[in-house]
Amino acid sequence: MEQINNIQVVPCTNSNYLRPFRVHYNQNGTKKSWDFMQTHDSVSVLIFNTTSHCFILVKQFRPAVYMSEWERSKAEPLQPAEEGAADATPTEPKVPEEGQAGDTSEETSSPPNQPPASAGVTYELCAGLVDKPDLSLEEIARQEILEECGFDVPVTKLRKITSYRSGVGVTGSKQTMFYVEVSDENRVGEGGGIPQEGELIEVVKVPLHEAMTFAFDETIPKTMGVIFSFIWFHNNMSPKYKISTNV
Amino acid sequence: MEQINNIQVVPCTNSNYLRPFRVHYNQNGTKKSWDFMQTHDSVSVLIFNTTSHCFILVKQFRPAVYMSEWERSKAEPLQPAEEGAADATPTEPKVPEEGQAGDTSEETSSPPNQPPASAGVTYELCAGLVDKPDLSLEEIARQEILEECGFDVPVTKLRKITSYRSGVGVTGSKQTMFYVEVSDENRVGEGGGIPQEGELIEVVKVPLHEAMTFAFDETIPKTMGVIFSFIWFHNNMSPKYKISTNV
Repeated sequence: MEQINNIQVVPCTNSNYLRPFRVHYNQNGTKKSWDFMQTHDSVSVLIFNTTSHCFILVKQFRPAVYMSEWERSKAEPLQPAEEGAADATPTEPKVPEEGQAGDTSEETSSPPNQPPASAGVTYELCAGLVDKPDLSLEEIARQEILEECGFDVPVTKLRKITSYRSGVGVTGSKQTMFYVEVSDENRVGEGGGIPQEGELIEVVKVPLHEAMTFAFDETIPKTMGVIFSFIWFHNNMSPKYKISTNV
Repeated sequence: MEQINNIQVVPCTNSNYLRPFRVHYNQNGTKKSWDFMQTHDSVSVLIFNTTSHCFILVKQFRPAVYMSEWERSKAEPLQPAEEGAADATPTEPKVPEEGQAGDTSEETSSPPNQPPASAGVTYELCAGLVDKPDLSLEEIARQEILEECGFDVPVTKLRKITSYRSGVGVTGSKQTMFYVEVSDENRVGEGGGIPQEGELIEVVKVPLHEAMTFAFDETIPKTMGVIFSFIWFHNNMSPKYKISTNV
């Protein structure tokens, strides 16, 4: 169970991760503009363990999901606390709410209406950014399978499911989804991501016979990729592996 | 065919649409921070026309997708042009590239390596933001079906498929997907979005028997929602409507 506390929200005008741009353009003679962000493309992998007949997912605390949940539970829009850091000029300074003050001491408590940490924990496919120009999509996917889930598989075992656009309004990046079968013999580590990079990832098994119930259980926070890939497996692998047809 | 020209990219430090925040927090005793953006939740709708046995999708030019394509075709990372606007302080000023200069005149030409406009055109489910607190998700979906696609249907005809998290790394927002059947009798307008809000949306029909080929044709840029919902239909509505099983 994750423990999340000492939450402070500050404005962010100089992020290494989120870099808004504005594009002005003419569309069929009409002047328009759009704000967007540059981001990397990504890969995701549906992993099926043929030894245990389980899907291998990753589960992690997602700050963006947590803040979205918190926001939904409140009436007022998000207002950042003030902070003296040079890269954090408040755009809408206001008196910080109780417990969300600009106090950086360890003693800062969390607000009383803070949701439980579980509100920010999501189930996802093993995935990663395409940020290494020298590697193919398959090689990047292979690395993520190893780092996040602890299975060492050759790239030749990766089968592309399809690709599509994600975040068409904001990033427009391309995601490519793969399928791979692993066995207990491919297991070389615990997975869990790279702690030095701040990754705290839990590897989760979803038994094949529970997959469809899991996919459509809305009380389990997950990405569309999990649902889509489980259905894809159902339609494409069911002749090989039996799966409940209760979609 | 869309015509896109006079493209200028500028930095964007004060967007009404993209507002980066930074959250500092303690996770299991470890200090961490994450940059995220606040955004609205959203709804999307798979529309099936029972008269023509076609799916109704929307097709539009997506600047973020276009810029992502452009970026992929280049070696260097995106560099904004300089602009004198108060809300656009260049973070990395450099000599503007030819055709991408800070010249706001109509005569500005597009760079020679600019991709065709079609590179930014995507096929999507009818969708919209949940930005009206007084309306239910179904009512918002109903409005989008009317505005974007020109069909007037009662909210009672909307069936929820499921919900999931989108953009877990950046926005963490929740998207709820619906299914609705319409007929030619429900058609009250052309759709196309609200021009005053800058929407230039084309309504597109995908015949049922072509749906699966369409879904997995990677040369047709689309969202995962289109692919997922087509498969969902295949698995859940095939007893009612015949669909090619060539998934």
